[in-house]
Amino acid sequence: MVAEFDIRPGIQALPASAIVTVANHGRGREGLIPLWFGEGDLATPDFIREAADRAIRDGHVFYTYQRGVPPLREALCAYLGRVHGVPVPVDRITVTTSGMAAIMNAMQMLVDPGDEVAVVSPVWPNVMAAVRVQGGVPVEVPMTLGNQGWVLDLEQLFAACGPRTRAIFVNSPGNPTGWIMPREDMARVMAFARERGLWVISDEVYARLVYDGRTAAPSFLEVADPEDKLIVVNSFSKNWAMTGWRLGWMVTPAALGPVLENLVQFSTSGTPGFIQMAGVAAIEQGEPWVAETVERCRKARDLVCGALAALPRVRIQPAPGAFYAFFQVEGETDSVALATRIIDEALVGLAPGAAFGQGGEGALRLCYASRLDKLEEAMGRLARVLG
Amino acid sequence: MVAEFDIRPGIQALPASAIVTVANHGRGREGLIPLWFGEGDLATPDFIREAADRAIRDGHVFYTYQRGVPPLREALCAYLGRVHGVPVPVDRITVTTSGMAAIMNAMQMLVDPGDEVAVVSPVWPNVMAAVRVQGGVPVEVPMTLGNQGWVLDLEQLFAACGPRTRAIFVNSPGNPTGWIMPREDMARVMAFARERGLWVISDEVYARLVYDGRTAAPSFLEVADPEDKLIVVNSFSKNWAMTGWRLGWMVTPAALGPVLENLVQFSTSGTPGFIQMAGVAAIEQGEPWVAETVERCRKARDLVCGALAALPRVRIQPAPGAFYAFFQVEGETDSVALATRIIDEALVGLAPGAAFGQGGEGALRLCYASRLDKLEEAMGRLARVLG
Repeated sequence: MVAEFDIRPGIQALPASAIVTVANHGRGREGLIPLWFGEGDLATPDFIREAADRAIRDGHVFYTYQRGVPPLREALCAYLGRVHGVPVPVDRITVTTSGMAAIMNAMQMLVDPGDEVAVVSPVWPNVMAAVRVQGGVPVEVPMTLGNQGWVLDLEQLFAACGPRTRAIFVNSPGNPTGWIMPREDMARVMAFARERGLWVISDEVYARLVYDGRTAAPSFLEVADPEDKLIVVNSFSKNWAMTGWRLGWMVTPAALGPVLENLVQFSTSGTPGFIQMAGVAAIEQGEPWVAETVERCRKARDLVCGALAALPRVRIQPAPGAFYAFFQVEGETDSVALATRIIDEALVGLAPGAAFGQGGEGALRLCYASRLDKLEEAMGRLARVLG
Repeated sequence: MVAEFDIRPGIQALPASAIVTVANHGRGREGLIPLWFGEGDLATPDFIREAADRAIRDGHVFYTYQRGVPPLREALCAYLGRVHGVPVPVDRITVTTSGMAAIMNAMQMLVDPGDEVAVVSPVWPNVMAAVRVQGGVPVEVPMTLGNQGWVLDLEQLFAACGPRTRAIFVNSPGNPTGWIMPREDMARVMAFARERGLWVISDEVYARLVYDGRTAAPSFLEVADPEDKLIVVNSFSKNWAMTGWRLGWMVTPAALGPVLENLVQFSTSGTPGFIQMAGVAAIEQGEPWVAETVERCRKARDLVCGALAALPRVRIQPAPGAFYAFFQVEGETDSVALATRIIDEALVGLAPGAAFGQGGEGALRLCYASRLDKLEEAMGRLARVLG
């Protein structure tokens, strides 16, 4: 009986996340400081939790609209208008059970076996995996780390697009790099995609986590027409400490509405109504929380990047967005081995760079959305191993 | 700009549910009695809602185990042992964000473009759609309605399996028919699948809604070995009035565990922890609720089937399972037109049989999981149109 092999080879071959491999090595160790996952250490704020409780009591527990309840879709339109200055009509919005689900739905719409998606990397591993689930081929376009931080060579991105390319995937602000694509580059990518008939999938989950005083990082919405082949993916996870709620959304051309109505129906049959009502509270009352989160992360980033920069073997540049320090350690080329050693010797949990594709190997990712005293302790421990 | 057509043709071509088409015609009409969807009219019971509230307060709001939190997976093992008398180890259980998501994950594991899945029909439309999302071909095996109710000809099912067939899909108790596959037939199907190297996907969402005094309808788990190519799909929606919570599970060979760990990660990245804790309460404290639900449905079924049988043009047989009356009306061949007319003339919302594939056209589906006085009123109205 070889049931385990009689599934699609591409699904069998999906690589386990190297982050999970490392986390499994460290899980449950007493005193370990876990900074490996992409989530903060604060629970969802009370006003959101109370909105969920209220919605459960009020009976938002039945089947509901596949593309999202009207109050949430309308709140999202207002939010995008407010944050990015772009009017987005409600028929462009689809609520999903996470940013991940939105990306999977995007791939299901676009990628046939053998189709290629050009992916700017280093990037979180699930993006390339979602392409592979469809039998597609992710084509990495690695950025380089210069003295001004991570840089994407647009000519290299465009050269990676061939006859089988269906889409360009950009995650800005980027996980794990914190890189932010300039608006002018977004405009050039959109123009290139338009000319070549390609789709752009833009993962803007970290848009609010920027440290240069802006309200948000640029969005592809700001450089695209409503009918452009653009799918913007977003999530409540990072802005409003809702990682465990599984709530996201996508913005597409309105013409895809009926298709998404079906595709959501056949993928998950929608998102719980009471979770969507919690999302309404997040959008409508959540700006102070976002501002506090950015301030908290800014202090954490200063602490972490400062402490890392003081270690002679470490190469680190504070990134302008997201909530990660992504740093190289001189002489270290095997990031899984290094992350494992750091667990064993320092009781700090970090994500190995190998998880994030080409250009990630040799680096480590540290999520600094955490209490300062915990980070201080972690940095002291790291200094003893990496110093 | 023709963005709307530049997606995979198979996704563009996914048919909208005929149920939704009819519901859109009737939605919002004052006084309409909606019996079109597959959900009861009772909200989730308090002990489940309170468990969710508690879990939200207790901080189950972070990322969690991709295949489900240990307390829920263990509760499900105990449940399956108790209800079906089959020991199921925890490594065979994967929690999903609905039965639908479990079916989609199953299709993602098994179906390449051009692959066929033999589907016993009439069946709820999402099953065939999930095959199509993968580029696969659903091959319907229509049952026939005899004097003893719906009958599946196993020889016909086996004959429908050819060189491209990857799986047999069975939904028993069936939506919309209420048909229950006998255990001996399940054993024969499993043996055939084993011999031919096919998978069996068994949707057992209505297993507890049976009206012959049994605890549950037979499960394929009862006739299969742990290593058989069997995927059993289930959900909290129907048994515990949790349609809007999006919580389901699947039982697979243990060998698929690591694959599902990845596939859940890349599809939805898991199910909210607090919803899973609500599921634990449903399993551990929910038997009285299930018993009450079955009793309530039994009375509703008697009322509805009796009233329908009294109409000379209606052909109805009380089905042994699920919570639908699925009935033909003499001289009516266009079920969408008929359902539309019933909305206009009787203010009752029914699902058109055409939604459920071959053998469904000409019939109507009525969900009787509803208050008796409401059903009585609905039956009076229907009598005036169909009598």
